[in-house]
Amino acid sequence: MPTFRESLVITLLSDFGLRDAYVAVMKGVIASICPAAVTCDLTHEILPQDILAARFNLMVAYPHFPEGTVHLAVVDPGVGSARRAIALRCAHGFLVGPDNGLFSGVLQSSSVLTAVALTNAEYWRVREPSHTFHGRDIFAPAAAHLAGGVPIEALGDRFDPATLVQPALPTFAQRSERSGQAVRCTGSVQYIDGFGNLISNIPGQAVPDQPWQIVLETPAGRLRHFSGIKTYSEVPTGTLSALVGSHGWVEVACSGGNAAQALEIAIGAEVILESRYSRRQRHSSKGEAAPTYDG
Amino acid sequence: MPTFRESLVITLLSDFGLRDAYVAVMKGVIASICPAAVTCDLTHEILPQDILAARFNLMVAYPHFPEGTVHLAVVDPGVGSARRAIALRCAHGFLVGPDNGLFSGVLQSSSVLTAVALTNAEYWRVREPSHTFHGRDIFAPAAAHLAGGVPIEALGDRFDPATLVQPALPTFAQRSERSGQAVRCTGSVQYIDGFGNLISNIPGQAVPDQPWQIVLETPAGRLRHFSGIKTYSEVPTGTLSALVGSHGWVEVACSGGNAAQALEIAIGAEVILESRYSRRQRHSSKGEAAPTYDG
Amino acid sequence: MPTFRESLVITLLSDFGLRDAYVAVMKGVIASICPAAVTCDLTHEILPQDILAARFNLMVAYPHFPEGTVHLAVVDPGVGSARRAIALRCAHGFLVGPDNGLFSGVLQSSSVLTAVALTNAEYWRVREPSHTFHGRDIFAPAAAHLAGGVPIEALGDRFDPATLVQPALPTFAQRSERSGQAVRCTGSVQYIDGFGNLISNIPGQAVPDQPWQIVLETPAGRLRHFSGIKTYSEVPTGTLSALVGSHGWVEVACSGGNAAQALEIAIGAEVILESRYSRRQRHSSKGEAAPTYDG
Repeated sequence: MPTFRESLVITLLSDFGLRDAYVAVMKGVIASICPAAVTCDLTHEILPQDILAARFNLMVAYPHFPEGTVHLAVVDPGVGSARRAIALRCAHGFLVGPDNGLFSGVLQSSSVLTAVALTNAEYWRVREPSHTFHGRDIFAPAAAHLAGGVPIEALGDRFDPATLVQPALPTFAQRSERSGQAVRCTGSVQYIDGFGNLISNIPGQAVPDQPWQIVLETPAGRLRHFSGIKTYSEVPTGTLSALVGSHGWVEVACSGGNAAQALEIAIGAEVILESRYSRRQRHSSKGEAAPTYDG
Repeated sequence: MPTFRESLVITLLSDFGLRDAYVAVMKGVIASICPAAVTCDLTHEILPQDILAARFNLMVAYPHFPEGTVHLAVVDPGVGSARRAIALRCAHGFLVGPDNGLFSGVLQSSSVLTAVALTNAEYWRVREPSHTFHGRDIFAPAAAHLAGGVPIEALGDRFDPATLVQPALPTFAQRSERSGQAVRCTGSVQYIDGFGNLISNIPGQAVPDQPWQIVLETPAGRLRHFSGIKTYSEVPTGTLSALVGSHGWVEVACSGGNAAQALEIAIGAEVILESRYSRRQRHSSKGEAAPTYDG
Repeated sequence: MPTFRESLVITLLSDFGLRDAYVAVMKGVIASICPAAVTCDLTHEILPQDILAARFNLMVAYPHFPEGTVHLAVVDPGVGSARRAIALRCAHGFLVGPDNGLFSGVLQSSSVLTAVALTNAEYWRVREPSHTFHGRDIFAPAAAHLAGGVPIEALGDRFDPATLVQPALPTFAQRSERSGQAVRCTGSVQYIDGFGNLISNIPGQAVPDQPWQIVLETPAGRLRHFSGIKTYSEVPTGTLSALVGSHGWVEVACSGGNAAQALEIAIGAEVILESRYSRRQRHSSKGEAAPTYDG
């Protein structure tokens, strides 16, 4: 379990932006309940109600924070409806926010030890929460109380983690095939970051030792091939390439440019990773013959 | 009075943006004077010199911070002129910044216990402050010294809070009428947030139990009516409605959209809250007859 | 030398933006290594790979932070190449980042006491760092270890500071001439801030007591003259003027407006500071005769 000291970090993620004082208000609520907590912004520039982007950013940041960190995430299209407000305890940290799939990325590699609905009004900021700002009235107080040492069970009714809402993910079907030396793996774009990198859900471990490439179909129906590299410095500025990105997934990126703009690819688009061999063989034999590399 | 621990939060608000190091420089000055202070950004995306937006954000954030918090606000069109640099002590916290009306929102519900002009150069960063960056040279040092326990009286000459500059507010005239069950309350738009919500200065308490609506006149001279709801989840995405927003004021909002863009309404526009009854009666009898609801 | 308490501030500067969790990930790594460190964002809105902008912001913020502060800067076009990853100890603080000229502004007025290449993998986050995110895997760990008290020499091999990479600065040649009372000083635009102020590399000390002006040549080849003032409040809104800016350099600014947009001047453009005398004399006698002021 986290030591006292380590349990005091609270990260904040939202779609509130930083133009208005919404985020600051949550921090004021936290400081009022748990003055020793240290807050850290994950991002507040999630596009309004973009649960998939929030899910991705939480997933990649979560493992890097100290054990016992509380992750407060408020991207909440259902605020004011009957959607559940929840807190989850995992082995490495706590998750607090609406039950709408936000945490499904973290939970791919982390199991829930305790799940509670935030039904105990004793731990809300006020007995009659706002209909539109549960971040201030329910979630921030819950996060601050967790950081301050209140047991998660005190915050409300336990529920079965199997009932957690799953987000409407894009296909994300991921299939891996191998025949001889040839590798072929199908996935999809799960996130596009601020640099325009197209981050797939194909893990870096799927990349073969032999030369490889990524195949994408543009909206105009054109197949595009991108050679796998190790680092941007291998290619001239402006080159579109594929590489294993810093978060561990295969991505298509443009050295010194913006791949998403250049390609007009959106989240959910299919991504194929394959060994790099001649086009004819790929189409005729589907990799059953020994591949001939053309690169 | 605040305990030592609670007095160590300093919030920062400015129109400096986060692109350049101006805000960081103020934090460096604070850390150099009072290393134990914890800074919290309110917002730095106030449009240049928009005192009204700064006033609103300070007003809504202020009550949520711990007692003794120091609020440093630098939206300062008059920097370098004879405008007064001030610090105010209120029951719940301290306010530090230029005397141009920035604090008038907070002071609507909080009275000034001590007001001083920051005339004591001992507590400036340097004896010859920059003509353009009092945030660094006068205000941040004052905030840090207050957080560190320097009595406010030491920072300069006391003055009568009645002489504080009042901002040039839009009409903001707020009239409430009642006749029988009918309610009619006139106010104006005091802020438009980053989501495009038109936040009026009509308090949520003015909303009647019976059905109600908001009436706005668009720049094109068209009267628009918006039904009062409790939460966005009551209406389909894209619906313009009126509700009591999270800060406690009546606002016009577009579920999943941007009301300000849709309506082209600006700060200062008149807002009428009224019981929802038939149009004919409203215009002919001004609510003297028992209203007939049409919704 | 810094006290323990004072050595715990870590500033972060990058071109990562705040839309994605890259910056938060670095803060998570720091909190995991040195929980007592306090992070402070310098800016993350440096344009991609704009080393000169990063250099300027570091230079102006550096002196305002407490002694022993660790400045972590990641603007790193060469990530993944053979460029050196470094940490520098100066009298007032530590600098951590890629060796590409980022720190050359700080080092104009601060000498390097110890320079090390971050070659000791014991202090990396993982033995096989990402090829694209040394901020997370090499630089943030180094900064956190320095803040936590690890001696800089432990982080890797010492090298001669004379071998530090110098950035490709614009001409920045700065010449000062004096004849009689007349002053003439030539420099260039070293930074354009978010307000559109054109900040030259001519120090405020070069400004004479007598009236002065700045001369710029616009891209269209037109010579423009801007009178030297002390503060924006001296001139009407919208006036283009020259003044000594808050960072101590002569700048051309537009009161309540954006000088860079109005003038279409870019970084590197030549800037001439001169005593303000009649145009004829300036061109005919080059200041050898006693100047006649025309302002």
